[in-house]
Amino acid sequence: MDLFSAIETRTSCREFLPDAIDKPTIEKILAAGVRAPSPLNAQPWQFIVITAQAKKQDIFAEAERCRAWAIEQSGWTWLGKYKTDFLLQAPILVAVVGDPKKSGMDMFQKDGPVGYQLACAAAIQNMMLAAHALDLGSLFFTLFEKSHIRRILDISDEKTPVALVCIGKPKEPQDPVPRKAVEAKTVYLD
Amino acid sequence: MDLFSAIETRTSCREFLPDAIDKPTIEKILAAGVRAPSPLNAQPWQFIVITAQAKKQDIFAEAERCRAWAIEQSGWTWLGKYKTDFLLQAPILVAVVGDPKKSGMDMFQKDGPVGYQLACAAAIQNMMLAAHALDLGSLFFTLFEKSHIRRILDISDEKTPVALVCIGKPKEPQDPVPRKAVEAKTVYLD
Repeated sequence: MDLFSAIETRTSCREFLPDAIDKPTIEKILAAGVRAPSPLNAQPWQFIVITAQAKKQDIFAEAERCRAWAIEQSGWTWLGKYKTDFLLQAPILVAVVGDPKKSGMDMFQKDGPVGYQLACAAAIQNMMLAAHALDLGSLFFTLFEKSHIRRILDISDEKTPVALVCIGKPKEPQDPVPRKAVEAKTVYLD
Repeated sequence: MDLFSAIETRTSCREFLPDAIDKPTIEKILAAGVRAPSPLNAQPWQFIVITAQAKKQDIFAEAERCRAWAIEQSGWTWLGKYKTDFLLQAPILVAVVGDPKKSGMDMFQKDGPVGYQLACAAAIQNMMLAAHALDLGSLFFTLFEKSHIRRILDISDEKTPVALVCIGKPKEPQDPVPRKAVEAKTVYLD
């Protein structure tokens, strides 16, 4: 698939078919992930590929807890429609875990290490594009408390669960969701 | 360019030719950026396209200040070779600025909003792949104090300068930098 087509037609998938994904396909997606740039090429990512239904159930419970909390805090009742059943439905969830000690020079800055998380997000974007080119849908999911996901997935306190990536065959083909025009988002400092 | 080729052959560029980049090309790169996913499709990014040499100079001074500080703090004398002259050399720098109020439900979580920064990083990865497919080099740069970049670029305290993306024609063709094997980075929870 052409790069620009992949970028333009990829869209977030929230309804998956249960069809299993074979290991070579998973590895192809992860291999795209590790080609992302990272501070000083520290490659701060680790991947936990989850097919175990009991783990998915725990993650789903955590996401629904956070969603209920967000609705309560925000008063955004329309969030009611954003159910997270895709966490149970997707054949695989990939937890992308970052290492703040692999954040390059920014670990010494006042703002604290953030480069390693951005590198993980860049890796996820590669993974989502790769999944799309392989006719799979994906979702970049971050609605959880890090401490809870650490406990569920047995991640040490020194690492950061950055996101969960749901991957699977989409239930239906989907059109890309519109974006605001680039001009509305850009200023030029000539 | 094929998606997988783009992902595999893109590499970080630290030496640029001074050749200007025309506006349609810049817009094509930014249009790839805005196709990234974001929490609740909030599109939390803004782009400041910098060609003004005086601004580049201020950014370069800030990066060199941070680098000197990092060397002092870390004792990593080998960081001495990582000069940031590319900030002066690249024909354009794109500051990607995120809005923490456009972070979806994670603004209500204990961990604080982070989804908007991850979305900006996903947008940057799209931009870097697009630049590569257009025969341009790019660099994802984060060595600065946010408060200083806010002042240099007149960004409000409510927004986060997430990264600077240097873009231009590479001085020389470059081979991709090796990565650790995917297997070394992955565990399976079946």
